[in-house]
Amino acid sequence: MKFSIERAVLVKAVSQAQSVVERRNTIPILANVLIEATPDGVSFRATDLDTEVVDRAAAQVERPGATTVSAVMLNEIARKLPDGALVQISSDDASGRLSVQAGRSSFSLATLPREDFPVMASSEYSASFRAKADMLRRLFDKAKFAISTEETRYYLNGVYMHVAQADGQPMLRCVATDGHRLARIDAPLPVGADDMPGVIVPRKTVAELRKLLDDDDTDIAVSVSETKVRFATPTLTLTSKVIDGTFPDYSRVIPQNNARKLEVDAADFARAVDRVATVSSERSRAVKLALDQDRLILSVNAPDAGTAEEELIVAYGDDPLEIGFNAKYLQEIASQVDRDNAVFMFNGSGDAALIREGGDQSAVYVVMPMRV
Amino acid sequence: MKFSIERAVLVKAVSQAQSVVERRNTIPILANVLIEATPDGVSFRATDLDTEVVDRAAAQVERPGATTVSAVMLNEIARKLPDGALVQISSDDASGRLSVQAGRSSFSLATLPREDFPVMASSEYSASFRAKADMLRRLFDKAKFAISTEETRYYLNGVYMHVAQADGQPMLRCVATDGHRLARIDAPLPVGADDMPGVIVPRKTVAELRKLLDDDDTDIAVSVSETKVRFATPTLTLTSKVIDGTFPDYSRVIPQNNARKLEVDAADFARAVDRVATVSSERSRAVKLALDQDRLILSVNAPDAGTAEEELIVAYGDDPLEIGFNAKYLQEIASQVDRDNAVFMFNGSGDAALIREGGDQSAVYVVMPMRV
Repeated sequence: MKFSIERAVLVKAVSQAQSVVERRNTIPILANVLIEATPDGVSFRATDLDTEVVDRAAAQVERPGATTVSAVMLNEIARKLPDGALVQISSDDASGRLSVQAGRSSFSLATLPREDFPVMASSEYSASFRAKADMLRRLFDKAKFAISTEETRYYLNGVYMHVAQADGQPMLRCVATDGHRLARIDAPLPVGADDMPGVIVPRKTVAELRKLLDDDDTDIAVSVSETKVRFATPTLTLTSKVIDGTFPDYSRVIPQNNARKLEVDAADFARAVDRVATVSSERSRAVKLALDQDRLILSVNAPDAGTAEEELIVAYGDDPLEIGFNAKYLQEIASQVDRDNAVFMFNGSGDAALIREGGDQSAVYVVMPMRV
Repeated sequence: MKFSIERAVLVKAVSQAQSVVERRNTIPILANVLIEATPDGVSFRATDLDTEVVDRAAAQVERPGATTVSAVMLNEIARKLPDGALVQISSDDASGRLSVQAGRSSFSLATLPREDFPVMASSEYSASFRAKADMLRRLFDKAKFAISTEETRYYLNGVYMHVAQADGQPMLRCVATDGHRLARIDAPLPVGADDMPGVIVPRKTVAELRKLLDDDDTDIAVSVSETKVRFATPTLTLTSKVIDGTFPDYSRVIPQNNARKLEVDAADFARAVDRVATVSSERSRAVKLALDQDRLILSVNAPDAGTAEEELIVAYGDDPLEIGFNAKYLQEIASQVDRDNAVFMFNGSGDAALIREGGDQSAVYVVMPMRV
């Protein structure tokens, strides 16, 4: 194998690939990136056995071939080479070393045979569709804060992507919950997605996916089977196993009949919650909302540290209500609200609250109350 | 006690004071800041018993007084209040609470009695002088990388500031070493510093001092006794115990007769060392320097990972020499060099190397070799 590649191209491709590599590996080859050079260009492949990233990059290929080398080290070397350098990469099967040269720098790196590299089996996808990057970004970004970190509830450790109906329209829907809060985000169903099985996309894949979605107008090819999901741009393919479990029936935790409506400026609300939460202890960050005619008083009472109170002018016309929430949950939801106003729908002090972004029905959040 | 203070002024004063507060305290009052309001203004005082910071700030004082309150919490609250807010602070001795109010936010914080707050005893200083901030910054910034972190060699856990002679001129000198490398930085002796006892300024104090030295032209009042050192600007006073120990006689580890001279671009050298060190294992980051007529080859040989080599064009006219160093030490010293050229003076492969910044004699570094 022998090719030359621009340093900036190498940095981009290797850094994207190596980000799926786990820092501590009991299987040495999982620390490596598989480099494959063909007459068409070069690909860099990395995996943790659950997630695989393949990056294709333009290169002058002199001699096709393949080998594997430490992903972290290749990434570091590429990063440290001078801007604008042309990098010569070649492997010598006899010595089992990969040579990396640029200007007056030269490296000879240990390799492991390409045959030992676990390439993820390609599967039959039962649905394939295309979606714009900004649509997918919205679906996952707005849902991911609610992903559970409890390992015993593994079926909540991801975002449940599936087809659903809203007002008689078919939707591509992402839902995440940890039992304390829930996010449900809808987008119009792309053509070809009708038969998609519902899949739970793992937290790590959601984070990796984010890197494919930076450019709003990129068309992302999405493929889904019962066991795998794949997201691809022309240069980058992310394949991931999905979580083997059943996502709970979330619809019964979304309150249908909450009638008390509070409308509040989302940014003001988030900042006020942040301020009053300062005095609360780390463990129980409970903040009390006291609602009365167009007035919201946020307060925290932490016996050891002190008390905090803040008043906000809001739109509220129902009976007085006192209800407590975890401050962190309130802030996270308020920070999802893209519009000026967050709309809260309450029932009683012991009931879950529903939050929307202004009049938009396509994003719904639920948060459980806390006793205060 | 009752006063009002601009939010920006409060943020600056409290954040500077609270930075000496240790995050884990067995003595509760050490987590607090002592607020003292007099008709002239307000001061914020924090201590870890070894270091004390007093910040004076302008405020409208309505009723003088004093109390203590959690430094971290007051800092957080001040930071989170809206820009431009006027903050009302008052203490109520009956309730033992401190009230903080701004706009529609109000906080009531637990206090501890001011009488319990350990104020550092003022001592007799045997020397007092004034020095420009940029001069002190250079002395400490260039020396501090060499401070030892070995707790058993506590007398090396700081910068040794003392009076010394260089070419018959009296100098204010800062020295730090960890036994592997050493930095010796000189500046002209300020008037009044002649009788200063040599003191070892602890690492933490060096870090805190840095914050007083941001503005080049500030005059810093320095006071030194056998046991304490004080640095003061008109608004900020940093007092610290010095390390109770004897700094070793460093002069005998500074090579006097190294005759082989290497001159190299400091930035190129640092980058090349960084690149070749990529393949080295974390533990023994040994890089080999092979010198020959105007040519320097840097190389690393890490049996498991691979090898790296880089050639630099340098000025060197002596016999060929091979010598090894810890890559991190070389990089740290090279990054101290403000001028273009770093000048290395070598003797044999087993001998310490001396490094200077171009022709400047006022900063000298020493680094011990490693076998490679």
